[in-house]
Parts: sequence; C-alpha cells; structure tokens
Amino acid sequence: MASTVEGGDTALLPEFPRGPLDAYRARASFSWKELALFTEGEGMLRFKVFGSAVYSSGSERHLTYIQKIFRMEIFGCFALTELSHGSNTKAIRTTAHYDPATEEFIIHSPDFEAAKFWVGNMGKTATHAVVFAKLCVPGDQCHGLHPFIVQIRDPKTLLPMPGVMVGDIGKKLGQNGLDNGFAMFHKVRVPRQSLLNRMGDVTPEGTYVSPFKDVRQRFGASLGSLSSGRVSIVSLAILNLKLAVAIALRFSATRRQFGPTEEEEIPVLEYPMQQWRLLPYLAAVYALDHFSKSLFLDLVELQRGLASGDRSARQAELGREIHALASASKPLASWTTQQGIQECREACGGHGYLAMNRLGVLRDDNDPNCTYEGDNNILLQQTSNYLLGLLAHQVHDGACFRSPLKSVDFLDAYPGILDQKFEVSSVADCLDSAVALAAYKWLVCYLLRETYQKLNQEKRSGSSDFEARNKCQVSHGRPLALAFVELTVVQRFHEHVHQPSVPPSLRAVLGRLSALYALWSLSRHAALLYRGGYFSGEQAGEVLESAVLALCSQLKDDAVALVDVIAPPDFVLDSPIGRADGELYKNLWGAVLQESKVLERASWWPEFSVNKPVIGSLKSKL
Amino acid sequence: MASTVEGGDTALLPEFPRGPLDAYRARASFSWKELALFTEGEGMLRFKVFGSAVYSSGSERHLTYIQKIFRMEIFGCFALTELSHGSNTKAIRTTAHYDPATEEFIIHSPDFEAAKFWVGNMGKTATHAVVFAKLCVPGDQCHGLHPFIVQIRDPKTLLPMPGVMVGDIGKKLGQNGLDNGFAMFHKVRVPRQSLLNRMGDVTPEGTYVSPFKDVRQRFGASLGSLSSGRVSIVSLAILNLKLAVAIALRFSATRRQFGPTEEEEIPVLEYPMQQWRLLPYLAAVYALDHFSKSLFLDLVELQRGLASGDRSARQAELGREIHALASASKPLASWTTQQGIQECREACGGHGYLAMNRLGVLRDDNDPNCTYEGDNNILLQQTSNYLLGLLAHQVHDGACFRSPLKSVDFLDAYPGILDQKFEVSSVADCLDSAVALAAYKWLVCYLLRETYQKLNQEKRSGSSDFEARNKCQVSHGRPLALAFVELTVVQRFHEHVHQPSVPPSLRAVLGRLSALYALWSLSRHAALLYRGGYFSGEQAGEVLESAVLALCSQLKDDAVALVDVIAPPDFVLDSPIGRADGELYKNLWGAVLQESKVLERASWWPEFSVNKPVIGSLKSKL
Repeated sequence: MASTVEGGDTALLPEFPRGPLDAYRARASFSWKELALFTEGEGMLRFKVFGSAVYSSGSERHLTYIQKIFRMEIFGCFALTELSHGSNTKAIRTTAHYDPATEEFIIHSPDFEAAKFWVGNMGKTATHAVVFAKLCVPGDQCHGLHPFIVQIRDPKTLLPMPGVMVGDIGKKLGQNGLDNGFAMFHKVRVPRQSLLNRMGDVTPEGTYVSPFKDVRQRFGASLGSLSSGRVSIVSLAILNLKLAVAIALRFSATRRQFGPTEEEEIPVLEYPMQQWRLLPYLAAVYALDHFSKSLFLDLVELQRGLASGDRSARQAELGREIHALASASKPLASWTTQQGIQECREACGGHGYLAMNRLGVLRDDNDPNCTYEGDNNILLQQTSNYLLGLLAHQVHDGACFRSPLKSVDFLDAYPGILDQKFEVSSVADCLDSAVALAAYKWLVCYLLRETYQKLNQEKRSGSSDFEARNKCQVSHGRPLALAFVELTVVQRFHEHVHQPSVPPSLRAVLGRLSALYALWSLSRHAALLYRGGYFSGEQAGEVLESAVLALCSQLKDDAVALVDVIAPPDFVLDSPIGRADGELYKNLWGAVLQESKVLERASWWPEFSVNKPVIGSLKSKL
Repeated sequence: MASTVEGGDTALLPEFPRGPLDAYRARASFSWKELALFTEGEGMLRFKVFGSAVYSSGSERHLTYIQKIFRMEIFGCFALTELSHGSNTKAIRTTAHYDPATEEFIIHSPDFEAAKFWVGNMGKTATHAVVFAKLCVPGDQCHGLHPFIVQIRDPKTLLPMPGVMVGDIGKKLGQNGLDNGFAMFHKVRVPRQSLLNRMGDVTPEGTYVSPFKDVRQRFGASLGSLSSGRVSIVSLAILNLKLAVAIALRFSATRRQFGPTEEEEIPVLEYPMQQWRLLPYLAAVYALDHFSKSLFLDLVELQRGLASGDRSARQAELGREIHALASASKPLASWTTQQGIQECREACGGHGYLAMNRLGVLRDDNDPNCTYEGDNNILLQQTSNYLLGLLAHQVHDGACFRSPLKSVDFLDAYPGILDQKFEVSSVADCLDSAVALAAYKWLVCYLLRETYQKLNQEKRSGSSDFEARNKCQVSHGRPLALAFVELTVVQRFHEHVHQPSVPPSLRAVLGRLSALYALWSLSRHAALLYRGGYFSGEQAGEVLESAVLALCSQLKDDAVALVDVIAPPDFVLDSPIGRADGELYKNLWGAVLQESKVLERASWWPEFSVNKPVIGSLKSKL
C-alpha cells in the first residue's frame, strides 16, 4: 500500500531506496511513515550517573561539582562494587572514618578484595569518584554505607592522587569504549564536606545526624535512585534488540534459499520457521519499547515528588511499585534482547557470524544489561517480595490491593480470577491480546497463592526466612515476578494500541503486534497454565500455539515496513546485510573488499612456503 | 571423602593445590580420580576436512595429493558454500564445463554471488581447494554437484593462480585463528583428473559415467561424509561446555555473597538458584560427552563399511540412522552449550563479563557450531523426516520399526506406549532416569503420531509436500526431532551408568547425573506432556520440578569434584576465576595487574586535561 500520509511531518521522513525490499514494502498493510509519526510522539531524553548521584544525594554545598561537571573541568564515576562484593552492598568493606581534629574523613580500603572494581570511566578518565564507604565516627560507631566525593586524579595531569591506586580492569566481552576501572585507597583524607549528605551527615565535632529515623528507612529512601538505573537499562536493551531485528528481518526478506520447485527460490522470511524465530522479537520491540517509555514517565513523576520533598504515603507507595516494576522489567528486557539477538544471529546463518554485520557486537554490548545494577535473578526477588508483602498485608490486615500505577489492583479479585478457565476454542478467537491478558491475570494470581503457601509451608517445617525464600525462588518467586511484569507490559501495550487516538489504518497491525507479543510470551508458561488447571485438554495448548503461528503469518508482509519504522539510518545501523536498499550481496561483497589487506598475502608467507622448516628439524636434540 | 584408589593409574593424576575449594572437595561422595579413570577409557582421536574429502571422494590417481598433504607441501580447504547459497547445495552455481579438446575442466564463477565464501583456511593459507561445482559435459548435459581439486595459490609464493581471485572474508565473532576466505574463478582450467571421481567420472571423450543409477542415490551415498562433520561438532561443543561449567562452578564454590546472618556470607553455590542454573549443565556435559563418544564409534563402524565396499541393506540403514542422529545431536549439543555458556557467564556476574575469564571467547567460538555443517533448525528436519518415513513405511507396508543401532525399535510398541500415564506421585520415586525414559518414549510416540496426522491433514487441504512440511516443522517436526535425540542421549547414558562394570562407589553420583540431565531436559517439554494427557493434575508437574531441584541439591557437594574430573590443567583452562586452587580474588587481582598499561595514563591524556579545546571552539563557523 502506498503512503496515505501526505505532506506535513512525513515530509521529514526520507523515502527508502528502491531495491529488493520493494516487494515487501508494497505488500505492507499500513504506511510506515504514519506509524513512525505515531510512535515518535513517545520519544524523550535520559540522564548521567555521577552527576545524578551528586545531585540526588548531595546538598547545596555540592553544587560547585555540578558546575564543574557541566564545564567539563572534572569527570566523575560511581564507585560502589568491590572486587569481592557486588549484589550484597551491605558487605561493602571500604571505610570512611571521621577525624574531628582535622574535620576530615579517612577513606581506606582494608585490602585488595575491597578494591573498588568495575567502575565505569574509572580506568583512565575520571578525576573524581562518588565512593561508597562505611561511615564511622569516633567511638567506633558505624552508620552503614554513605557516598563521598573523592578526587582520584589530578585534572591537569591525570596522575593519581596520593594514596590512590587506580587502573583499568582490562578487556571486557563488549562495551570496550568504556574504561571500567579499579581503585584502592590508602588512608586518603577528604574534607568533611565531601560526604554527600542527603541521607545523613556528620557535625564538625563528629556527631552523626540523619533526617531518617532508622537505617532501614534510610535504605528504603534510596530505592528511587536504584530504579532510575534499571529503567535506563530497559531502554538500552530494547535499543539493541531494535537494531538486531532490523538486520535479521531485512536479511530474511532478501536472502533466498530453497523453494517449492528446484528452479524457484523464495525469501527465507516466507518460511513459517523463520517467521516464528524472528517476528515475536519484532513484536517484543514494539511492546517493550512502549513499556519502557511509559515507565520512564512514571519515574519522572516519582523524582518530581522526591525533589519537592513529598513524604506522603502515596509517594512511598509509588517508589515501591516502580522499584518492583523496574526490578523485573530490567531482567525481562535484557533477557528478551539477549535471546533475540542470539536468534537473529543464528537466523542470518554464517553471514550473521561475520563481525561486520554487527550482531556479535550487539550481543556483547547487551550482555552486561543482564548483570549490572543487579543480577537479573536476584532482582526478580525484589519483585516477588513486593507482591508477597502485599498479599501478607491483605491476609493479615484485610488491606485492598491498590497501587498508584494500578499494576496490582486486579489482585483484589483474585479468588474469582482463580476460578476462571481458558474458554477459547478456535484460533480466530485467540488472535487478540485480551485473551492473553485474562490468562496472565489468572497466572499471576495462581503463582502468588502458590508462592505464599510454599513459603509458609517451608517456614512451618523449620526453615528460617532466609532459607525459605531461597528454596521458593526457583520454582515460585522467579516465575511470579516474570509473569507479573509480562502482564504489566502486555496490559500497557494492549491499552496503547486500543486507545481511540490510534489512526484507523494502524489498528490492525498494532493489534497483531500486541497479540503476538502477548501470546508468545504466555506460551512459555503453558506448562503452568495446565498444571494449575486454567488449561485443560489438548485443544487449549494447540490453539495457543496455532495463534502464535497465525499471527506470524499475518505479520510477515508487514515485517519490512515495521522495521523501516524502528531502524536508524544505514550509517548508524552499520550492517551490510541490513541496509535499507536490501542489496544484500552487493553490500556484503563491497564491504568485504574494503577490509584491510583482504587480497594481500599474510606477512608470514615466506616462512609458510619457501623458508619453511624441514619436518623434524624443530624436534629437541636432547 | 579421601581417594579410595591407591597407586596404579591414579598416580598419574596430580593432586590439586590446597585452598578455598578444599571444603567442597572433602565433601564429595566419590573419588574424582576413580571417576576420571572410568571416564578416560572412552577417549579417542578425530580427523581433517580437506584430506578426508580427497580420500573419500577421490581414487588412486589422487593419492599423490594425500602424500603432499602429509609432507606439508600443499595446504587444502573445502569450498562448497557460496556467497548466496549455503544450506541449499543444489542451488550452487559454480560450473565445471568439460572441454574434450584439451581434456580439461573449466571452473567458473558466473558472478560474485557465486563466489565461494566462508571457506576455512582459504583466506590466507590454502594452496589447493576441493571446489564443488556443477559438472557439465558437451551438449550442455549437467550432472549436478561434483568435487574438483583446484590449485588456488602457488605453494612457493602464496600468490593466487591466474584467474583465481582469493581473499579473506574478514573478522568473525570468534574463531579468528582460522582464515575463512572467498574465491572467484574466471575460466580456470584444470586437468580432467582433478575431478574427485568416487561418485561419477568423465571419459576423455566427454561421456559421464557413474557407479550410481540415479542422482538421488548418488546424493544419498554422500550422507556418511556429512554425518562425520556433524559428529565432530557435537564433541567440539561439549568441550566448550566443559570449560565453561568448570569456570562457573569453581567460581560459585569460592564466591561468597549474602548469608543467613549479616556476619556470615556463604558460597553462592549454596543457593538453590545457583545450583539450578549451573548443575543441569554439568550433568549435560557428562551425558552428552558419553553420547558423543558412542556416536563416534557408530560412525567408525559406518565408515569401515563404506571403505570395505559394503552395499548391504544394513549398511544403508546404518547410514540413515546415523544421519538422523547426527543431524539432531549437532543442534542439541550446540544449543545446550550456547545456553550453558550464557548461563555460566551470567552466573559469574561481572567477573564473568571480564574477557580474561574466558567465557566470552568460549561463547564466540562455540557459536558457529549452531550454523555450519547445516543450520540447526534445518538439520532437525532431516531427523523428523527420517522418523516420518519409518512411520509411513509401517503404516503402508506393515514394516516393523528396526534400526541397526536400535534407536527406533521401541516405536514398535507405540499404540501401547501412547496409553501410558505418568504414575509417579512422590519426588523420591522420581529421582531416576528411568522415569524420564518412560516419559520420553511416550513423548516421541505422541509427537510422531501428531506430526504424521498434521502433515496428512495439510496435504488433504491442498498443501504441496513442500508447504505441508514447512507448516508442520515449528510445532511438530522440530520438537519431535529434539525429543527423539534427547531420548537417545538419555537412554545411552542411563545404560552406561547402570552397567555392571561401574565401580560401586561411583554409582550414586553417576545415577544422579543421569537423572538430573534426563529430568531437566524433560521438564522443558512439560506443556506437551500435559497437552497429550501423559501428565494430569497439579502433582505431576510439581514432582518433576521438585525432583530437578532435589537432584541439584544432592549434587552440589559433588560439583567441585565432578569439575575436577573434566577440567583441563589451569594453563589450558586459562581463567583466573576458574583455577584449581580456588584462590578467586588473588588470581583475578594478579591477572588484572599483569595486563598491559594497567596503571599508565592513556596516550591522549594531554588533550583530555591540559590542551583540551575550549567549549564551543569546535562549532562550525559557517
């Protein structure tokens, strides 16, 4: 279908070059420019860790650092993780002892296992670090982890400051444009004002003061800043997945292999197998991208409240809800992307393994998203604990399930939801995300009840709380957290594509994307749906599976246009097999011939041919 | 437990250095040296592609090449894949026209899309190539793909031969020690004798002759050589997985994080989550390693038959069976390893992302195992087609299910097997691979019947054979092939660990490994077990899940000793966090400080600090 949108903003969107992708572009059910404009409305900007930490944890006295950051006079980094401790931040061992005689803190690393490690920008660049250390005042009273601004290098020479041993941790699997570093501090003295004192402060005489009543409350107040890192990672991961599916789908639309006759070969995108491998990830890009943007707006609301000093119950609840959503959506987005890039890599065959086509770099660069700001599996525990806490509150205090963003409100009806069954008997009735939504609500209720019961059963049989939670996490807590966040993603995208403002010409394709992501995600829980009795009989599983395949088939003619909406310009995508002109082999061949020394002999050719050692001459003469 | 094996062969196995891993080594239920000796008995040697192709496809007149290969006077490569064709070998476009006037073949690439591409060793090294081209004799009669020996470089100068354009395809994600290359041939003339003439020959006058009656039969006869490549890949993949689990488990036994109290931190291996993430892959190493070795012995039997000219029905059946097993075990092993390395990488947190710890290289080097010698998803079709063919033979001709290696014999009882149900009601009764074996037999029967019915239904509703097979592959053929090969792996390892020759002290641990691999693999099919009615009720799924976790818990104290059996010496494993002494942080810190320029300033430090451009000075003056 030709574009139905004339003039106006679409004039800014260039036409794609004509070529082998024309056939699919002509078959698309919608105008890619119209969808691009519809999607573009959601765009917004993101933020930086060091400056953000100073701003959110410090006070007026630290504004001078913010100014220097903006003038690029100093460069910062965020030093929390140590060589031997990451997730367990309470076990961080760097200390900051206060000396009232000089009004200084003494920053110290007891040994190399307490060296700050993995710190981004610390390897070669940073002049200052926000160092997290245990704050101790005279009399050996310690007050837990606090952030300090510590100068680690001279900004004029980039040489380390006295007492600081700072270096680069070496090559990583990816992200090597970033200089991750380590630092050890040997009794490094910093002024009392170096403490970022939003959460707690020390008087000149050495008395600890805090606006928070207890350590636990102080810890809880910092959840907001943890969430912001995780929300950023969701968007970073989705960006990687966008690039990967763009490459793999343009390849699939132009790569021909086999066909109904020996003479005719068809694009590999025509095979149900290739559609099933790739199109769910295209749908995931759209659904998760929308979720990521909406969660970012929620976070802005939270931070606005923090900045204005809002200490209402709603603000606290909002912080907890966003913390729960961010802690599970980071794992969901980073794993979906990890698996999606791998599938794209394999679906492009050998050419996907060629470095210049970029799928390897994307995989390597996405990988830390599964790890930093909290290991995925550990983060999921935050989310399952949040839900279990709400259920306990309901059981013991008769509280309603209510949260500011309404993500848990449906749980109020959980006894009724648990009585529901899967009633859809035909594939045609299943091609809507509403079917998956109902199933997901049942699934979350089921897993929440099962987890709660299992946890109590473990405790009754003598397990400590620590043991009980660890024993329940694999089989209960983990799927609970994932199902809950998947439901939220599905719910938000479902509402988004069914809102009245969606142009009529885009409704069909967006509805299919929403249904495909929802049903495909749900299908990974099919065993649980059967186990708990929501599914019964052969038909339920068959209908779900067939619906996913039917949606893939319905979307395959739209795939190239859907990629056109999300793909960046060729020079950014930077993949010969993924270029917008679809000239797969010309681009690949041209790029291969541009590589360095492609046709030249290797430098070692004489040793290999004319001067080669006689066989046996290298044997030991001993 | 201390070693119970004294003197003898175990004296060859060195003791491990004492250190943080001692605690786990002391808790092991068996002697690692005894298991190492028991396992070592299965070892054997493997082979090379170019020489093997010349040997198996050529005749006496090519023996001179074999001699030159062994004297290292020539270096070869195997050139089948082209830029635009891989899996569909029938569409290969390089031609070899015979010219009776000079008794030569003219090797020609019609255009760059027909350039040979991805050829290992071709980039910089090889002097000769086995080039697959369509053989045509005068009168334009073409006889399909045949292999020719073509000299591509001068062995004295390594310069390309006239008419040959040969070069390197560039950097890959991994395996960069290998120079994958491309070549185009412009009317390159080679003597008539360059044809490797085992499958077909051309007389000096230009008449095509072949010992095989038709093209299809000739194609079938080459299946054996395809299998050998795939069987090798199975062992290569398992080797990668061995290294990865050794690194991740030694790390997990020494990395401490969190604990029952704030004072006491426990090794992360003590967490059920970490056990569940890693121990199934340890079990997979043992089960797949045994399968790989046993399949190699089957292949040796096949090749012995080929070499002795055996044209019996049994030999042909053996070829088909091995082809089916190799075509599905290559995907199983390469995917299990891909997922296993990824899990190991993530389970080691940030330190797993540091390049020196080697998990990235293993992942990159394993990756092509999913692609070469046939894309995994396409290969699985070979196996499902094999099983469907046997069922059709049974349905139409009343034939029995019988195969030389007996992998399909159980199917004879398929109507009775399909009536079976899962009867195990306690976790204790489930801790044996026999439970999984029974379930797998039901699953294969179920999927075979469903696939057969679905295929016939598609054909009845008007699909061509090509369409029908493509439509059935995702939901039916693919799981059928995987379930069949998993059953075979489980069956062989089950028999292996239950044979009378297993030392009594090893039976418990080997039985647990067998049960864990079997039940863990089976659990991924739980939805199908429910859907087909083998499972019903909540308990079945719960028992399966709990059994996997119980086996993980039973094996965690043996994990370090099981790794000691399979891990190579430290200098081969080459991973600071995976060294046998378990000194995690000392090794890692030491390795970081040994990196190049670790503490030095970056070369660009003056531009970054003293000579930096004034803000705004780089703005365009236009």
